[in-house]
Amino acid sequence: MEEQQSGRVYTSNWRVTYRMSDQMGVVYYGNYFEMFEFGRTELLRGTGFSYAQMETDGFYLPVTRATAEYLAPARYDDLLEIQTVISRLDRLRIEFEYEIRRAGEPGLICRGATTHIFTSADGRPRRLNPQWLKRIQLLME
Amino acid sequence: MEEQQSGRVYTSNWRVTYRMSDQMGVVYYGNYFEMFEFGRTELLRGTGFSYAQMETDGFYLPVTRATAEYLAPARYDDLLEIQTVISRLDRLRIEFEYEIRRAGEPGLICRGATTHIFTSADGRPRRLNPQWLKRIQLLME
Amino acid sequence: MEEQQSGRVYTSNWRVTYRMSDQMGVVYYGNYFEMFEFGRTELLRGTGFSYAQMETDGFYLPVTRATAEYLAPARYDDLLEIQTVISRLDRLRIEFEYEIRRAGEPGLICRGATTHIFTSADGRPRRLNPQWLKRIQLLME
Amino acid sequence: MEEQQSGRVYTSNWRVTYRMSDQMGVVYYGNYFEMFEFGRTELLRGTGFSYAQMETDGFYLPVTRATAEYLAPARYDDLLEIQTVISRLDRLRIEFEYEIRRAGEPGLICRGATTHIFTSADGRPRRLNPQWLKRIQLLME
Repeated sequence: MEEQQSGRVYTSNWRVTYRMSDQMGVVYYGNYFEMFEFGRTELLRGTGFSYAQMETDGFYLPVTRATAEYLAPARYDDLLEIQTVISRLDRLRIEFEYEIRRAGEPGLICRGATTHIFTSADGRPRRLNPQWLKRIQLLME
Repeated sequence: MEEQQSGRVYTSNWRVTYRMSDQMGVVYYGNYFEMFEFGRTELLRGTGFSYAQMETDGFYLPVTRATAEYLAPARYDDLLEIQTVISRLDRLRIEFEYEIRRAGEPGLICRGATTHIFTSADGRPRRLNPQWLKRIQLLME
Repeated sequence: MEEQQSGRVYTSNWRVTYRMSDQMGVVYYGNYFEMFEFGRTELLRGTGFSYAQMETDGFYLPVTRATAEYLAPARYDDLLEIQTVISRLDRLRIEFEYEIRRAGEPGLICRGATTHIFTSADGRPRRLNPQWLKRIQLLME
Repeated sequence: MEEQQSGRVYTSNWRVTYRMSDQMGVVYYGNYFEMFEFGRTELLRGTGFSYAQMETDGFYLPVTRATAEYLAPARYDDLLEIQTVISRLDRLRIEFEYEIRRAGEPGLICRGATTHIFTSADGRPRRLNPQWLKRIQLLME
């Protein structure tokens, strides 16, 4: 089991739509998980392939655990910066960590993490093959 | 082609969540289409089967057209009443019309319509079989 | 600081819409947080008042932390049962725990928790007044 | 009443997230309205100001009518191109038209339109002031 514990930080940008706001005038707490999804999708694109390609190859990454801490509100039309890192990887699972800030500002808005297991299309656990494992490991160096 | 032009009105209730509100303090305009979906799902359940069962039987109802008119705002925690009617049905397509009000109040909040074609799982047009046609026709009497 | 550590379980039902499903054929992980929101809203309604009323009274409950564990998939048209409990309450914050199952089935689909602080409309911390504290404490007995 | 009937086309890009897909493997029909919102927000940014700034200035644009036609499915991870045009403008209302394609492909995926009235924060109709009218008119030349 080749496991790695650290990773490189990938940054992607996200524009907050009106749909994401709620009547408190801030981004609804459940909507941050879509930003996390976007962060890890963009990170995986760094393999030269996409998560869509992983699914075509028969590897799915359902989430088994998700957490978020909300430190400051994001608002409509904010341009956010999502920093994503792979915090753990082996052939059974992958973990990502996320930090969201307003682009160019130091203050942390939201911090979170997700854990995923590798499965086949029918949802059964499936060990990641060496080819994809290597591709993803390269993103951690 | 057995086509019918009228229908019975089905009523279902919907509680507005915080997620559906936006920073104007009202339900986001795009979220009404989920209520329309709920209205037609609950109507079809009146066949004694569910839309999920239609998909199991190989009939899908992708939307080809959707419209909504917004006459008054709905707000967080409102209990809404969705009235749904089949306005047209033949073996190629089905059309629904919707009216949304606050439960027990006469004022119209939103009015809309959707058109759907029948397809197989791969998205190709597929004529509805007589069994399902008859089940749905019974909902129009 | 009157703090309480336990609580009564409140059960509410939720029908899964097509909107909540994703291309894996299951409920998208971020959509469970709306069910958690619904669970706590319905619980608070047990005070004889609503969360909407709390906001009218100037008390807001922004989320500061949210977690979810996903144990089994929920699917389109499932009728789910959300069990919500207040796991902690004082004048500064409130914590809820959630369990989601298919109605009438023992297997756990999702388990989660949220932490909220009490604030005024402008987002500043605001100690809950004794009247609302008492109302909510009654939900824990 | 200075009314204009044509407009310049503004193009913006949108990446489809997993959240937007449904169990048919395509973008859920209600999610196109968020893309329309994004299209008109990006168009208005061409004024040198943002829609957020319009709200700060006391002008809101609630939707009174929305329509969409669905011609072909969009899928997870597609990079879409949203073309937005102002089809009508006067001091009482503004109308936008939208066309969505896969970036660099000619085939139309979705076509739609929205009508908005200008209101104040409390939702009452409010004639757009000459300054903003002129800014927006410049986007139509």
